[in-house]
Amino acid sequence: MAQRYVRVQNLEGQVYYGLLQLSFKVHVLDAAPWLQGQLTDLILDPESYQILAPCAPSKIVAVGKNYAEHAAEMGTEVPAEPLLFLKPPTSIIASQEEIQYPPHSQRVDYEGELALVIGDRTIKCTPEEAQTKIWGYTIANDVTARDLQKRDSQWTRAKGFDTFCPLGPWIVREINPGARLQTFLNENPTPVQSACIDQMVFPPDFLVSYISQVMTLLPGDIVLTGTPLGVGPLNPGDRVRVEIEGIGRLENTVRDREILQNQTH
Amino acid sequence: MAQRYVRVQNLEGQVYYGLLQLSFKVHVLDAAPWLQGQLTDLILDPESYQILAPCAPSKIVAVGKNYAEHAAEMGTEVPAEPLLFLKPPTSIIASQEEIQYPPHSQRVDYEGELALVIGDRTIKCTPEEAQTKIWGYTIANDVTARDLQKRDSQWTRAKGFDTFCPLGPWIVREINPGARLQTFLNENPTPVQSACIDQMVFPPDFLVSYISQVMTLLPGDIVLTGTPLGVGPLNPGDRVRVEIEGIGRLENTVRDREILQNQTH
Repeated sequence: MAQRYVRVQNLEGQVYYGLLQLSFKVHVLDAAPWLQGQLTDLILDPESYQILAPCAPSKIVAVGKNYAEHAAEMGTEVPAEPLLFLKPPTSIIASQEEIQYPPHSQRVDYEGELALVIGDRTIKCTPEEAQTKIWGYTIANDVTARDLQKRDSQWTRAKGFDTFCPLGPWIVREINPGARLQTFLNENPTPVQSACIDQMVFPPDFLVSYISQVMTLLPGDIVLTGTPLGVGPLNPGDRVRVEIEGIGRLENTVRDREILQNQTH
Repeated sequence: MAQRYVRVQNLEGQVYYGLLQLSFKVHVLDAAPWLQGQLTDLILDPESYQILAPCAPSKIVAVGKNYAEHAAEMGTEVPAEPLLFLKPPTSIIASQEEIQYPPHSQRVDYEGELALVIGDRTIKCTPEEAQTKIWGYTIANDVTARDLQKRDSQWTRAKGFDTFCPLGPWIVREINPGARLQTFLNENPTPVQSACIDQMVFPPDFLVSYISQVMTLLPGDIVLTGTPLGVGPLNPGDRVRVEIEGIGRLENTVRDREILQNQTH
């Protein structure tokens, strides 16, 4: 099995990067691995830590309509160039944390996606150079309030709520270009989304090069590569699981809407 | 004169928050002032530091069309709710740094704006509470590639280029609600933008409350409050200066386009 790079918090709230062992112990690194973190003597037992999102990006750059069949299901065409948008870092949650259904929306959708983790400060790189700037891969759910996305001209609100970017559970260094991405709801064994990541219109190295012509990417930054066909609604109480072959499973529950409304009034 | 809170870098690259004295010496704080930074014994001479943007936000939340006359000049109406978008932190530059004219665009505009600096972690606050969450005020230029803004459905690229968010030069704690914002180009004594900040459609406390219903604001985060009537083009070599009464002057030069093109090819 490939090395799995995690970010965890111990019971005192101390945050560590580390390697997840088969025993689920975490072998702690002295810094983020893309910042040349080295293994320490510290090993955390499974009951002594909580898993966090695997990085803490300075920004999340996302790409819209990057699978042709998804662009079609949205009633739109594939854009001639990557369509960029940003999600705020405050939208990130870890695997197993709860997605909050905001009172603003009547329609919140899942969007399973491959996430790229940037390893180096990257400015105006070529697609050839871009491959060396991608330190690893993880899984994201680009949760979207579809009704607000249609109402607002900009997607910032619809895609920017707290908890709207489940990310993880860990990072792997390599991925098979033909790896399959699948999204599952609750106990249904039939995926609601299923596509090979090589069906992307603009592949990862092209995206990183393109973005880097506009804005500098920093170590630990995240690029979301778009969602395939099959987006659909989440309901309070649903469990949603995004799987990518060779990475793992990102799984989150949607918190009850009424409880949230009671909390905010 | 009101206290001016700055962020500076000394010749060794060490970054400090501090108070700018009338002599232009900087009295160094031991942390960001909104994180209860206290005065130290260290005082920096004017020749021993370079001024940076006055904070390093985890996000920049901006508001579109928040002055009625500017919405009209863009051929649009004032939105019923604040129209949110994000600029990446990598777009920030300090006063006196150069705006880069990207090779992607033929039309780059200035947009002078009042910027709010958030002092506390802010989640779902009321407009009444919001006033206490605004730690201070500074000046921003929401530089925009107008041609790309019209071409792309999302504004991320048009407003997200490196150097497209001049910010500073410093932060003050209080501002007169009737303070005037003016933008000047080169030696022209007639401002190209001139409006009182109380002409905003949605005032600062409303904006902070509204944003905090969507996403958690963190200490040091920036809210850009929109630009008034009078946006227009910047040309390579131009000097652009945004002034707000009671704060100061944010001044930047636009770097020559040909030089940039030579560097990127």
